[in-house]
Amino acid sequence: MSLKPLDVVHNALDSQIIVLLKDGREYRGILKGYDIHMNLVLQNAEELRDGKPVRKLGLIVIRGDNIVYVSPPGGFK
Amino acid sequence: MSLKPLDVVHNALDSQIIVLLKDGREYRGILKGYDIHMNLVLQNAEELRDGKPVRKLGLIVIRGDNIVYVSPPGGFK
Amino acid sequence: MSLKPLDVVHNALDSQIIVLLKDGREYRGILKGYDIHMNLVLQNAEELRDGKPVRKLGLIVIRGDNIVYVSPPGGFK
Amino acid sequence: MSLKPLDVVHNALDSQIIVLLKDGREYRGILKGYDIHMNLVLQNAEELRDGKPVRKLGLIVIRGDNIVYVSPPGGFK
Amino acid sequence: MSLKPLDVVHNALDSQIIVLLKDGREYRGILKGYDIHMNLVLQNAEELRDGKPVRKLGLIVIRGDNIVYVSPPGGFK
Amino acid sequence: MSLKPLDVVHNALDSQIIVLLKDGREYRGILKGYDIHMNLVLQNAEELRDGKPVRKLGLIVIRGDNIVYVSPPGGFK
Amino acid sequence: MSLKPLDVVHNALDSQIIVLLKDGREYRGILKGYDIHMNLVLQNAEELRDGKPVRKLGLIVIRGDNIVYVSPPGGFK
Repeated sequence: MSLKPLDVVHNALDSQIIVLLKDGREYRGILKGYDIHMNLVLQNAEELRDGKPVRKLGLIVIRGDNIVYVSPPGGFK
Repeated sequence: MSLKPLDVVHNALDSQIIVLLKDGREYRGILKGYDIHMNLVLQNAEELRDGKPVRKLGLIVIRGDNIVYVSPPGGFK
Repeated sequence: MSLKPLDVVHNALDSQIIVLLKDGREYRGILKGYDIHMNLVLQNAEELRDGKPVRKLGLIVIRGDNIVYVSPPGGFK
Repeated sequence: MSLKPLDVVHNALDSQIIVLLKDGREYRGILKGYDIHMNLVLQNAEELRDGKPVRKLGLIVIRGDNIVYVSPPGGFK
Repeated sequence: MSLKPLDVVHNALDSQIIVLLKDGREYRGILKGYDIHMNLVLQNAEELRDGKPVRKLGLIVIRGDNIVYVSPPGGFK
Repeated sequence: MSLKPLDVVHNALDSQIIVLLKDGREYRGILKGYDIHMNLVLQNAEELRDGKPVRKLGLIVIRGDNIVYVSPPGGFK
Repeated sequence: MSLKPLDVVHNALDSQIIVLLKDGREYRGILKGYDIHMNLVLQNAEELRDGKPVRKLGLIVIRGDNIVYVSPPGGFK
C-alpha cells in the first residue's frame, strides 16, 4: 500500500515533528495544522542547531516552499 | 482538530507578529491584512536584528514568497 | 477589519513609495500603476543606497517577483 | 488614474528602453515587442556596463523572468 | 516502450531508494509513498555523506521540489 | 506594429542563433524547434566562451527556464 | 519544418543521452522515459566529470526542473 505524503503529515497532527528548511534551519514543534502547499502550523516551536534548541519561537506558520523534509514522531532519533 | 495555516494568520489580525524572510531579514509589526499568497500588511513595522529594532518602516506590504515563517503574538519570546 | 495587500498598494497610487527588492536594491518613486502580480509603475524613480538617492531612473516598470516589500507614504521615516 | 504596467511597456514600443536583469546585466535597445510574461524583443540591443555600451547584440528576445525593471524613454538619464 | 518517470517511482514502493537533493544532501530509505509533485515518504531514512550513513532520520516526507534525482533499487552501486 | 517574442523565435528557425543562459553559459547553433516554454532545439550546438567555441555539443534541447536571451541571426556581431 | 523539443526527447528513447544540470552535474545514460515536465528516466546512468564517468548510478529518475539541456545521440562528441 502506498502512503500519500500529505496523509503522513496529517497523521502527525498534535505530535512533535522536526522540519528542515532549504537554508539549513531546523525547527521542532507540535504540528497543529497544514494545507496542500505544505504550509505548517507549529506550536511550541523551537529553532534547533545540531539538534539542540537555540531559540524558542512559540507558535509559527511555516511557508511550505521553504521545506526540505518533515519528520514525524519516531522519525528522528 | 487541525488549524489551517491561513486561519492562524487571520487570527493574528491587529496583533503584533514577527515575520522571518528567506534572506534572514526579520520584521515586527501589527498585522493589518493578508491574502492567499501570504502577502502581508504590517503597520508600525520595524526591521529587527538579533531581535532588536534597527529601522522603523511604518506601513509595509510584504510579498508572501519571501516569507520563511510568520509568528503570531505569544509566538515569540 | 482586514486590509487586502493589493488594496494598500492601490491606496498608494500617486504617492511616493519605497520598494525593497530581493537583491537589496531599494527604489523610491511615485506609484502610477500596479497589477495583480504586484508589477509596479514608478514615476520619478530613484535608486537609494542607505536611504539616499544614488541614481535617477525616471519612469520604471518593476517586475513584482523581485519585491520584498512596498512601503506607502507614512510607511518610511 | 492608474496605469497598468504592461500598458506602460506597450507605450514604449519603437522607443529606446533600458532593461535591468536580476544578475545585474543591463541592456538598451529599441522595444519591438513584448508579451504577458514580459518577454521582450529588443532591436539594436547593447549590453551596458556603468551605463556605457560594452557589447552590441542586435536583435534579442529577453525572457521576462530575468527582469528587475524596464525603463521607457525619459525613464533614464 | 516508454516508462513514465512517476511509474518508475511507483515501482520502487517498499524498496530502498536513494534521493539526491539540490543542496547536495543525499538520503536513503524505504519508499512508502509519493504524489504527483514527487513529494516522497521515506521510512528508515538516513542522511548519507560520500555514500555512508551519517544520521538516522526514521520517517520523513521530502518535498519534491528539492529533488535532483531518485534512484530505485539496482539504481545505485 | 508589435512583434510577439515567440514569433521572433519562430522566424529564426533554421538560422544560427546565440542563447545566453542564467549561469552565464552561451550556446550557438541552428534553431530547429521551440515550444511555448521557450524550450529550444539547437543543431550543431557549440558552447561559447568569450564568443569563441570551446565545446561541440551537436543536437541539444535547452530548457527554456534557463534562458536570459535568444539572439537571432543578425542579432550578434 | 519545426521540431518540438519534447519530440526530440521522445526520439532519443532507448538511446544514450547526456543531461547537463543547473548545478553543473552531468549525467549519461539510456533514456527510458520522460514526461511533459521533462522529468527523465535514465538507465545505466553515470555521473560524468570533464566528460569521464566518475560514479555509476544505474536507474535514475531526474526531475526536469534541474535540467539545462538534454543532448541526444550524435548530440555529443
